[in-house]
Amino acid sequence: MARIAYFGPEGTFTEQAARSLAAAGDELIPFETVQLALAAVRKGETDAACVPVENSVEGPVPATLDTLAEAEPLVAVAEALLPVHFSILARPGTTEINTVASHPHALAQVRLWIEAHLPGARPIAASSTAAAAVAVQAGEFDAAVCAPVAAEHYPLEVRATEVADVRDARTRFLLVSKPRQLPEPTGADRTSIVAAAANRTGALAELLTELASRGINLTRLDARPSKTNFGEYRFFIDFEGHIAEPRIGDAVAALRRRCRNVRFLGSHPRADGVRATVEPSAGNADFVDAAEWLAAVRRGEQA
Amino acid sequence: MARIAYFGPEGTFTEQAARSLAAAGDELIPFETVQLALAAVRKGETDAACVPVENSVEGPVPATLDTLAEAEPLVAVAEALLPVHFSILARPGTTEINTVASHPHALAQVRLWIEAHLPGARPIAASSTAAAAVAVQAGEFDAAVCAPVAAEHYPLEVRATEVADVRDARTRFLLVSKPRQLPEPTGADRTSIVAAAANRTGALAELLTELASRGINLTRLDARPSKTNFGEYRFFIDFEGHIAEPRIGDAVAALRRRCRNVRFLGSHPRADGVRATVEPSAGNADFVDAAEWLAAVRRGEQA
Repeated sequence: MARIAYFGPEGTFTEQAARSLAAAGDELIPFETVQLALAAVRKGETDAACVPVENSVEGPVPATLDTLAEAEPLVAVAEALLPVHFSILARPGTTEINTVASHPHALAQVRLWIEAHLPGARPIAASSTAAAAVAVQAGEFDAAVCAPVAAEHYPLEVRATEVADVRDARTRFLLVSKPRQLPEPTGADRTSIVAAAANRTGALAELLTELASRGINLTRLDARPSKTNFGEYRFFIDFEGHIAEPRIGDAVAALRRRCRNVRFLGSHPRADGVRATVEPSAGNADFVDAAEWLAAVRRGEQA
Repeated sequence: MARIAYFGPEGTFTEQAARSLAAAGDELIPFETVQLALAAVRKGETDAACVPVENSVEGPVPATLDTLAEAEPLVAVAEALLPVHFSILARPGTTEINTVASHPHALAQVRLWIEAHLPGARPIAASSTAAAAVAVQAGEFDAAVCAPVAAEHYPLEVRATEVADVRDARTRFLLVSKPRQLPEPTGADRTSIVAAAANRTGALAELLTELASRGINLTRLDARPSKTNFGEYRFFIDFEGHIAEPRIGDAVAALRRRCRNVRFLGSHPRADGVRATVEPSAGNADFVDAAEWLAAVRRGEQA
């Protein structure tokens, strides 16, 4: 039975992701911000934390990336991918919907739907999708745009489900813990690192070439500005493969050599199950063969 | 006298940026979203639009990047850099501040200040910093966290200025228009492109190497997911220099050759005045000399 912190409140998409990543009997504990959820793991108050990392429409989640890059290291040990569609909740018996509350990001993602299905309804900004549900329950507004799981927490009626202007929008969530025994490689894994590359011409091209020359496929790259120094950047790089594999270990060691402040952010199975592309001459067997040949040459047994 | 659309409402940071980029007599017209402001330029309703593109704390502005990458091309012809600090506005005579309204992003950027200076005040989410000022004026809340320019639009009292938890946070804004005569190179310019690189190993490393091998320094890189295809990306790349320069033209043509759907997003002076780093053997004169030598060799005059 583990204790899992998550970016709350209850009834949000992150709670839904945390549930999907938790084992039976795990205790889920909401925290007010991503920073506080990750701090709970660092202090040992919880065993892990579930936080959003990337949305297919909005892009990366800055609070998660910045907090993982700073202070004591944490590693992602699993991920979840949730479709971003909303449920519309109202008090039972409500006949006229004049106001619709939600977090501004959620309102932006259902604007066209509201115009089509609730014409004239006024959008109201709330601090979270769950806070909107609370306000509707209290009678402040007529309807709330919420994560589907919210319907389980509030005594509200579900008026519509799977509401979203962009079909197929998805959010990816990470389960992070202190560095520990990594999950086993599966052939469909993702490895994440962050590197604060020197601010000089070609620094990023060099890092990416270390991956490309070993046939390793990127799955995400975010250049985040340093908070205090405009123009200086940290690079968050996700790629296919697991650090336990010879080909990935070879690349990660090269990145470490080029860039002292590279930090490992985790290797874990991909939620979408997509298997790694392995380029000709860049498979694990190729790396093992080359290392064995080199060792034999050095022993004077081969040439 | 030009007509300039901006991401409104009145009284926001974007209005402040638009004012700094406008000439005397230009007319500023607020639009409800970044998309609508850019659509006004595309339809010819305005001559230009001012929109935020990047914040040193929050990162890129997805709506701006996505809208520039799609539909008819627009180019940035100027930029402005604004410090992100807020003013706290209240109705004249207010003695007790129990609620503080603003956009959630603004509230996040002054959380520590509120805890220190208005302990116990409850933060309230509004749809924009200006909407918060309107709500305070209407008596709904006690104070609003606003852009400094808001004080000129609303009959509220300024209770504090230059409020910000992170010192030196800045937002960069672009002035964009339809493709037209570009501003002259100044030696301290920025060029922006967007490329939808093929989803294969090494694609981004190859693009960046075209820039690095010509000694061109990146100033920003954002990989934005395609809205409909998770795992496919557009790369927004900013670098030092002006497309009118031989060294930059050479690189941009190479990017176009590698990547058919590369789009030019503008060349203009940098707001911070930082002059381009030019690597040895990668100055404009070096490119011109090499081209002249090649032409002479082809004419049979040199070898």
